[in-house]
Amino acid sequence: MDRLPGFRDFYPEPVPTADAWSADLRRHIFNAWSATARRYGFREYDGPPLETLELFTAKSGAEIVGQLYNFTDKGGREVALRPEMTPTLARMAAAHERQYKKPVKWFAIPQLFRYERQQKGRLREHFQFNADILGESDRAADAELIALLIDSLRALGLTRADFVIRLSSRNAWQEFFAQRGGNAANAYDFYQIIDKLEREAPEASAAKLQALGFSLDAVRGFIAAGEPTAELAAILHNLAARGLGDFVKVDYNVIRGLAYYTGPVFEAFDVRGEFRAIAGGGRYDNLVKLVSGGKVDLPALGFGMGDVVLAELLKERRLAPKLVASLDAFCLIEDETLRADSLSLVQRLRDAGLAVDYPLAPAKSDKQFKRALELGAVRTVKVERSADGALLARVKNVATRAEERTPVAAVLDLLRRG
Amino acid sequence: MDRLPGFRDFYPEPVPTADAWSADLRRHIFNAWSATARRYGFREYDGPPLETLELFTAKSGAEIVGQLYNFTDKGGREVALRPEMTPTLARMAAAHERQYKKPVKWFAIPQLFRYERQQKGRLREHFQFNADILGESDRAADAELIALLIDSLRALGLTRADFVIRLSSRNAWQEFFAQRGGNAANAYDFYQIIDKLEREAPEASAAKLQALGFSLDAVRGFIAAGEPTAELAAILHNLAARGLGDFVKVDYNVIRGLAYYTGPVFEAFDVRGEFRAIAGGGRYDNLVKLVSGGKVDLPALGFGMGDVVLAELLKERRLAPKLVASLDAFCLIEDETLRADSLSLVQRLRDAGLAVDYPLAPAKSDKQFKRALELGAVRTVKVERSADGALLARVKNVATRAEERTPVAAVLDLLRRG
Repeated sequence: MDRLPGFRDFYPEPVPTADAWSADLRRHIFNAWSATARRYGFREYDGPPLETLELFTAKSGAEIVGQLYNFTDKGGREVALRPEMTPTLARMAAAHERQYKKPVKWFAIPQLFRYERQQKGRLREHFQFNADILGESDRAADAELIALLIDSLRALGLTRADFVIRLSSRNAWQEFFAQRGGNAANAYDFYQIIDKLEREAPEASAAKLQALGFSLDAVRGFIAAGEPTAELAAILHNLAARGLGDFVKVDYNVIRGLAYYTGPVFEAFDVRGEFRAIAGGGRYDNLVKLVSGGKVDLPALGFGMGDVVLAELLKERRLAPKLVASLDAFCLIEDETLRADSLSLVQRLRDAGLAVDYPLAPAKSDKQFKRALELGAVRTVKVERSADGALLARVKNVATRAEERTPVAAVLDLLRRG
Repeated sequence: MDRLPGFRDFYPEPVPTADAWSADLRRHIFNAWSATARRYGFREYDGPPLETLELFTAKSGAEIVGQLYNFTDKGGREVALRPEMTPTLARMAAAHERQYKKPVKWFAIPQLFRYERQQKGRLREHFQFNADILGESDRAADAELIALLIDSLRALGLTRADFVIRLSSRNAWQEFFAQRGGNAANAYDFYQIIDKLEREAPEASAAKLQALGFSLDAVRGFIAAGEPTAELAAILHNLAARGLGDFVKVDYNVIRGLAYYTGPVFEAFDVRGEFRAIAGGGRYDNLVKLVSGGKVDLPALGFGMGDVVLAELLKERRLAPKLVASLDAFCLIEDETLRADSLSLVQRLRDAGLAVDYPLAPAKSDKQFKRALELGAVRTVKVERSADGALLARVKNVATRAEERTPVAAVLDLLRRG
């Protein structure tokens, strides 16, 4: 039986085929994300992978509908596997808003789902690092979030030579749109045209813009000038103070597809332009109010960074570490009369926090040593009985082949000396 | 908008209501599970939360059907949110069996799902620690797995005074059944009666047993004798060698509901009998062959331990640690002309791996200090400019209120001294 199309299995390294996904690389990425978030004072949260369909369709704009992994459950409810985390976060924050002092800085690493019928071979799930700040309208919050994004990528070994943050703002486009007489009812359609500008034929974009009363030249001129608005200048200044200014450039091509963004928006890209966006986010000051039915009004902002493009980028830049099996020790059991004593030693070493393995069933000496090598054991340990009946251990450094004999009671100290 | 019934939100501590689930306690449990598995040489894997319905219904026995969170996807496929991990593991292992040297020791912490119409208020998802050994038929593997189960619980602070492993065997019951003339076609029905013995009225069990040609007295006598079979004696002996013998007792009441178990089976229970089973598992030597359509034949065994009963038990025994916010430092910014210098310091401290926060927007001095306390900061750090223009930092230990002044460049060393 096969797995469903668009879903992934994650195997331990070494992965069985070149295109198989690695559970160890995933763990490496998750650890970098979590550790960076915690350094920034973000706290972990999580919600259900399944939510009411309404949570997503009512608030996220038409472009989400039709891409959802939705169905009717046995109780007749319209439900969907979450395509994004932000609506869940808004729901959770709204439900207990008074219990948390603002600003709230939260992160999660949910698995997200989508179902697009037409796209063959495309993944239907991915994991996404989500970091959000709720309850702070100062632009300092936008800068803090972008700094976290930059440092999450740096934590994986990526540098300014690998990625750049393209910073933009819905407000800048809103101003452009209003100043040139755009009809407020068309604002969202206008944003959608800007969002597709880099991917669509110029003639198509020009025609769509003209229908709203705009020229492609004016739009291009605005993007080319790239003049930071006051809010973007504040964000750039803040990031420069941290020494992160080089990682960010104003780029009004970015506007983000989702309907709910309200202010600064940004995306992380590889500098060579070989991959899709690594991450994206921005302000969504109205979403908590929408999701809570008007009960809770909190300014908010956040970003999401998926594991798929990131893993591809790390592999391409040779930044995926060599993730191999490793053990502190492998206990050889060549004399089966010493199995109980060997098990006792294994237990003592594991109790002390060491990663230890041993042959479950009797095996030949050379097979055991081969197994120790396969499992990446740093040392082998072999219990022996001396002529006077005392239990000794022969501890061998697998790399240097240097060997020491020691009383069994002293093995832990010897292994800890490294 | 509310979350779906039977699903959980996980909030950072302190959780907003007494019955809310804690993301920090969940992380504490996951960390204990992972760390123990790695000490035992288990490697991490994962599979999709959604699988073909066939993977579960065809192989797991009638008792699984009707409890599944299943639906028809947009492509017309019959699919189900995974109710257990073992079929996915068997599928994955069978797909790339030759790439991994045996025995394979793997673990995962999947979220699992079920949908039972009739059960109001019951959870429809939980997380489950799964550990499995593939490719080893020696009873030493059963002992290794049970030792991992015991040490996973000990890693959370639970002791022999809190839990016990009830060890049994399908083989023992199989022998009982065959020796007393049971019809092989009825074996599974017989196991089901034994499985429900402790929960059902004696008369009901007696009637059902009689229909298969057995007396309740004979069954009870067999359980009361509790004579370990040779395979169980080998497992007990192995665990005793590790010093874990006290944690296990033979108890033939245990037989496990799932159809696919073939040998030793076991369950972990709290000793006071106040909770449902904490964990359960056993041998399933035929499942990989079934799932692979006969292509791969691997002996296998594993256990699953859910997060719900465990979290309840830890809370009841007061073993859930006080999981509060904490920061290595909170940077006070009282003079806004020093914000850029403060941000530069915050960045340097975070780069060095410290968890640091600061007021995003200007705030009064006393509000900032209150915030530092709320976030569990060990120190506060305040950048100041001396009369001669040099940048200094005032570092305060929040607990002792002891204060030191130091050049900004020396703050990291001071904080690292602890």
